Amino acid sequence: PGKKVLIVYAHQDPKSFNGSLLKIAVEELTKQGCSVTVSDLYAMQFEPRATRNDIVGHLHNPEAFNYGVETWEAYKRGGLSKDLVEEQKKVQEADLLIFQFPLFWFSMPAILKGWMDRVLVQGFAYDLSKSYDGGLLQDKLSLFSFTTGGSKEKYAARGDIRYLLWPMQHGIMHFCGVKVLEPHICYAPMHVSEDKRKEMLTAWTQRLKTLWKEEPIDCSPEWYFK
Amino acid sequence: PGKKVLIVYAHQDPKSFNGSLLKIAVEELTKQGCSVTVSDLYAMQFEPRATRNDIVGHLHNPEAFNYGVETWEAYKRGGLSKDLVEEQKKVQEADLLIFQFPLFWFSMPAILKGWMDRVLVQGFAYDLSKSYDGGLLQDKLSLFSFTTGGSKEKYAARGDIRYLLWPMQHGIMHFCGVKVLEPHICYAPMHVSEDKRKEMLTAWTQRLKTLWKEEPIDCSPEWYFK
Repeated sequence: PGKKVLIVYAHQDPKSFNGSLLKIAVEELTKQGCSVTVSDLYAMQFEPRATRNDIVGHLHNPEAFNYGVETWEAYKRGGLSKDLVEEQKKVQEADLLIFQFPLFWFSMPAILKGWMDRVLVQGFAYDLSKSYDGGLLQDKLSLFSFTTGGSKEKYAARGDIRYLLWPMQHGIMHFCGVKVLEPHICYAPMHVSEDKRKEMLTAWTQRLKTLWKEEPIDCSPEWYFK
Repeated sequence: PGKKVLIVYAHQDPKSFNGSLLKIAVEELTKQGCSVTVSDLYAMQFEPRATRNDIVGHLHNPEAFNYGVETWEAYKRGGLSKDLVEEQKKVQEADLLIFQFPLFWFSMPAILKGWMDRVLVQGFAYDLSKSYDGGLLQDKLSLFSFTTGGSKEKYAARGDIRYLLWPMQHGIMHFCGVKVLEPHICYAPMHVSEDKRKEMLTAWTQRLKTLWKEEPIDCSPEWYFK
């Protein structure tokens, strides 16, 4: 109660299964007394491309455009574009970040990857020698909640599903100092019965009820590749 | 000689180190008698977002928008948007796909991820039970060539760099039936001496000279997580 949650949501259709998972999270967390903010990326027509437009005013080095350097410098002088500043404010205030999306190609949809690329700039999310356990977004939790097209068996046949979590959970969240809760994976909701889908929605509600008691995972290589 | 190469390139500035790597590849491969096409994503202002705009005309199911289903159906009836059809034509004709980009967050920049999300649709790149060794883009090679911000030692300290190649090489290329050559990684070009940078550029030229003699990697979990 009193906790702040930011849900970054990447599905085009509110009537989708991802839309139902979002709705459940908003309702359940609000019921618990949390304050919930949603960044509905498609509805916002969020820009995924990392370009010069993200820097207001002059460039640090107009001779050779380096996005990482330019956004770092712009962050320090308060010169990042408005949409980024707004997202950073939401992140700063949040105790928990939930990412809700359909898995696209073993990873996030580009619109969500663009959110990571553009919002989590140096100076804000990490800095020189301030990364991993020293990252700048400490005392925050994150949770990747996603749906897949293929069944659990199809994924397991080629390798552990955890392999594909490494870049997202370790490479991004852990790098910024954000703790990571167990991912929430709904396998192939499009290909199961209506009953099974309802079961999956109920399971999400149930998990959210005790979410704040969960321990973060140990985000080391062993968790992923043991 | 006579081989066709598509380079999908994701850097904002031609004067960047990525720009130099691109230039070298175009020159060296052209010199070999290859026909080289470049998709310069930022220059094209390539759209990374997967939306309804990618389908020309009616939707298969207007009640619930599912991007995978809609692009599959649109592909079958020739109803994909023009920019996607053009990229698919380039892929179809290519013997080798080179992806040239700076690593962003253990993965591709969003603009390149959007190219994967939108171009490699079902029916074109894979299909029901046509994936991995049965994928639809067989007899093609791919190569991920990228630069990093951090040093080789920094990456190695947290786990093998190969861990982050799994979603890109296995989850995308291998899934579509495309064979994968060893990645080409230039570590931290921004933080090394001018001499070292020149060395890295020369190494890329040298590698390209004998590229067609290379054997693809064995894209199994063992290669990544041994």
